[in-house]
Amino acid sequence: MKKNILLVEIGTNKKTYFYLENFKDRNFISTNKGNILLKDIHEVEWGGIVETHKGFKYRVSPVSIVDFVLYGIERETQIIYPKDAGYILIKLNLKSGDKVFECGTGSGALTMFMANCVKEKGVVFTYEKRERFLKIAERNLKKMDLIDYVRLNLKDLENEDIEEKEFDAAFLDTREPWKLIGKVEEILKSGKNLGILVPTVNQVVNILKELENRNFYDISVKEIFLRDYKTVYERLRPEDRMVAHTGYLIFATKGS
Amino acid sequence: MKKNILLVEIGTNKKTYFYLENFKDRNFISTNKGNILLKDIHEVEWGGIVETHKGFKYRVSPVSIVDFVLYGIERETQIIYPKDAGYILIKLNLKSGDKVFECGTGSGALTMFMANCVKEKGVVFTYEKRERFLKIAERNLKKMDLIDYVRLNLKDLENEDIEEKEFDAAFLDTREPWKLIGKVEEILKSGKNLGILVPTVNQVVNILKELENRNFYDISVKEIFLRDYKTVYERLRPEDRMVAHTGYLIFATKGS
Amino acid sequence: MKKNILLVEIGTNKKTYFYLENFKDRNFISTNKGNILLKDIHEVEWGGIVETHKGFKYRVSPVSIVDFVLYGIERETQIIYPKDAGYILIKLNLKSGDKVFECGTGSGALTMFMANCVKEKGVVFTYEKRERFLKIAERNLKKMDLIDYVRLNLKDLENEDIEEKEFDAAFLDTREPWKLIGKVEEILKSGKNLGILVPTVNQVVNILKELENRNFYDISVKEIFLRDYKTVYERLRPEDRMVAHTGYLIFATKGS
Amino acid sequence: MKKNILLVEIGTNKKTYFYLENFKDRNFISTNKGNILLKDIHEVEWGGIVETHKGFKYRVSPVSIVDFVLYGIERETQIIYPKDAGYILIKLNLKSGDKVFECGTGSGALTMFMANCVKEKGVVFTYEKRERFLKIAERNLKKMDLIDYVRLNLKDLENEDIEEKEFDAAFLDTREPWKLIGKVEEILKSGKNLGILVPTVNQVVNILKELENRNFYDISVKEIFLRDYKTVYERLRPEDRMVAHTGYLIFATKGS
Repeated sequence: MKKNILLVEIGTNKKTYFYLENFKDRNFISTNKGNILLKDIHEVEWGGIVETHKGFKYRVSPVSIVDFVLYGIERETQIIYPKDAGYILIKLNLKSGDKVFECGTGSGALTMFMANCVKEKGVVFTYEKRERFLKIAERNLKKMDLIDYVRLNLKDLENEDIEEKEFDAAFLDTREPWKLIGKVEEILKSGKNLGILVPTVNQVVNILKELENRNFYDISVKEIFLRDYKTVYERLRPEDRMVAHTGYLIFATKGS
Repeated sequence: MKKNILLVEIGTNKKTYFYLENFKDRNFISTNKGNILLKDIHEVEWGGIVETHKGFKYRVSPVSIVDFVLYGIERETQIIYPKDAGYILIKLNLKSGDKVFECGTGSGALTMFMANCVKEKGVVFTYEKRERFLKIAERNLKKMDLIDYVRLNLKDLENEDIEEKEFDAAFLDTREPWKLIGKVEEILKSGKNLGILVPTVNQVVNILKELENRNFYDISVKEIFLRDYKTVYERLRPEDRMVAHTGYLIFATKGS
Repeated sequence: MKKNILLVEIGTNKKTYFYLENFKDRNFISTNKGNILLKDIHEVEWGGIVETHKGFKYRVSPVSIVDFVLYGIERETQIIYPKDAGYILIKLNLKSGDKVFECGTGSGALTMFMANCVKEKGVVFTYEKRERFLKIAERNLKKMDLIDYVRLNLKDLENEDIEEKEFDAAFLDTREPWKLIGKVEEILKSGKNLGILVPTVNQVVNILKELENRNFYDISVKEIFLRDYKTVYERLRPEDRMVAHTGYLIFATKGS
Repeated sequence: MKKNILLVEIGTNKKTYFYLENFKDRNFISTNKGNILLKDIHEVEWGGIVETHKGFKYRVSPVSIVDFVLYGIERETQIIYPKDAGYILIKLNLKSGDKVFECGTGSGALTMFMANCVKEKGVVFTYEKRERFLKIAERNLKKMDLIDYVRLNLKDLENEDIEEKEFDAAFLDTREPWKLIGKVEEILKSGKNLGILVPTVNQVVNILKELENRNFYDISVKEIFLRDYKTVYERLRPEDRMVAHTGYLIFATKGS
């Protein structure tokens, strides 16, 4: 039984996410171009074609974490974009079995990407001070079957302590991350990496100032841009508009 | 015993890679600012500081795959840059246990990143027609302890067949990848993703043309840019120059 | 008497263009936040503040060509963006007195920028095969008082000849500009520059192919990106989205 | 008689600038691929081909301001790049006859671009506190025959006054431009534009803070990127590396 699907409209390539658990009592789902029988969706192979009662055709596609974050995630916060997430994962050098620290959880987009990297044996300890966001993140992680590799913690780390330690990697996505760098210094293993995402240059300045006073080295600040192309081969050209800014990425390695 | 290290010079942040297995018969390694005792390197914790006989100081840093690819890899080919690799990993939706197809191996940079994602139980089957490159890739994978998750195949897939099948993901980094798309179509599971990297727009056109005749959907073409900043907080500014182009990334999902 | 104005809303920085000749019979203009007396607008100095009858405040700003193109131009075609126009002007090395060739006119955006460069003594000969567009360009040029430095020609240059010659610069903005390069070769002075704008890579390939067979040298292909920042100094950061593509710029110099 | 030439090597497209006034007593100039007779250079038309005594061929190309700035300018300072200059010219809305203020002169690169815009009747008043740079700028302006449209002033405007007023445009390229904004406010006509270039975000923050306290409106901060392509049509692709940062451009309009 399929649990998450992405319907990819043939012709337009428009994508719509469905969490099929929500439709257990029904025998069809509705698109804005007609209804599709759930029986058809469950019977077709991944990547197969189904039809609405009006005759419009869709591919039934599995939902990667990138797809979920872009089309399916429930959220009330800004999320971390795939273009940034991919780079974060490799800069933090995550691998199966790692123990990862994250604050704040937000909607859990990066939590998902990190949990997928460290499973089966690893775990992401994520901290969030706003209970509503933690509930949202929990629902998102459950939908994507990643909740088993995550410990959700309702805590305000600016005022409370991190009880865990010996982390293999750390990530901060809070408004004033410089206030948490001292605590991260204590719980991150030597030689392991901290990543931070902030939207403004003023925040970057504050972070660099704080890192200079802490035991971190190999500090870097980066921006990542993603440019999409229209895919008609006779008229290959970039899309007209793009995301110009999500945030600045700061990385540093814990010294000993 | 440390096996791979990155010496990060304090002050300049310049990085030098050493494969310590090459220095088993000696008791020091040489930097261009003096010699460092291997005893000191092995005794210090990761992220700790060692000194040359001339008094210059270095952090002894562990070597992530990003570090290895940028500073340590042996290569005779263009390599896939970390900025692209991070995005490829998440677009191919790799996870522990996956069975991945790659052609060509080149120096094995992307092979490493993918092997790190699919281990412990997964495996990357990588194909390369030039034996010299395969030997280089093998040495690189061994240095980073990733060889156990890779099957190296000396084969010209334009003229020979892929004997494996049911792959969870596929990646092509060859001069004329459109010639291999038909074969990839046969060995990739439905609903799973193909990624391709090519440097020229003419190649992108050929790939899009071929994909249109094959059973692939959700086709996208992307470019990723990475911009580095100087990290002096009183004078925060981007670096003067950047990599403007590594290649175009094409992604598509196998239909059924 | 002011002829063109840009109302810049205080607080939001939103801009609205008014061509005051259209309001000769009235004594006020209407914004979506109330009416402003024309008397007030004509009496205030440039950059001065006027108020709507509801109390909203606006700066009365003069209209540069950039402003006109972004906020005031009448158009049915894609226009050339200021980011591209600025670079075109200096690559074509335009100066007062030059005689410039342009095809097609479109809405006249680039025509304006070029006319402004070559006036008082210079002139832009611009060719357009669609009469409706030429009328629009004419109205635009008149509004900005640049019509005196422009000769508008209704002609399909793929089938008709250019009767003028000895041009100091040439620009092509048509669908198949490679078909006109031969004609431009004849009417452009030796050592002078041709510029071309096209949206797709396929067009760039065709142009490069044609230029190789013609007497042009120092061929270059360029893209220009403009990134805007939000201007709150406590939270300085780039705008979230940007124009990712307008077109590729090709430049070449006529040989002898 | 040619005064400035750019030799463009056929095949490589490499460019070398020569100021021919320096070779009045000789009958040849030397390239690194052999000597070329001055007689040949003067006799050939612009864009024509000359040959070294070793048989290498070059186009004799006229020198645009862009060419001069990139290949010919004498300089000890960072210069303003053409990509930025083109945009500055149109944002400052320069036209023939304008009276322009500039501080500091540096090597005179932007001074040239602006002088070319405002001639024949306009003039650029440029201020520089370091005499050595002013001499360099003077030599550069003379070589390009633009000195007649420029008044060079040796003055430290942080401590001395601007004696001129009623400027049509102003540009600041100094280390601490926020210290001069108050003075510019006094000498710039209402409704006219100020441009500023600075390399760091910290400087942008200081400028925005100062502008907020001054009578300026429509404040914007921008970055411009230029990406070059290799021009082989069978293998069209961007150049491998690019300039990632020259500076941030700030623009504001003087209120009344």
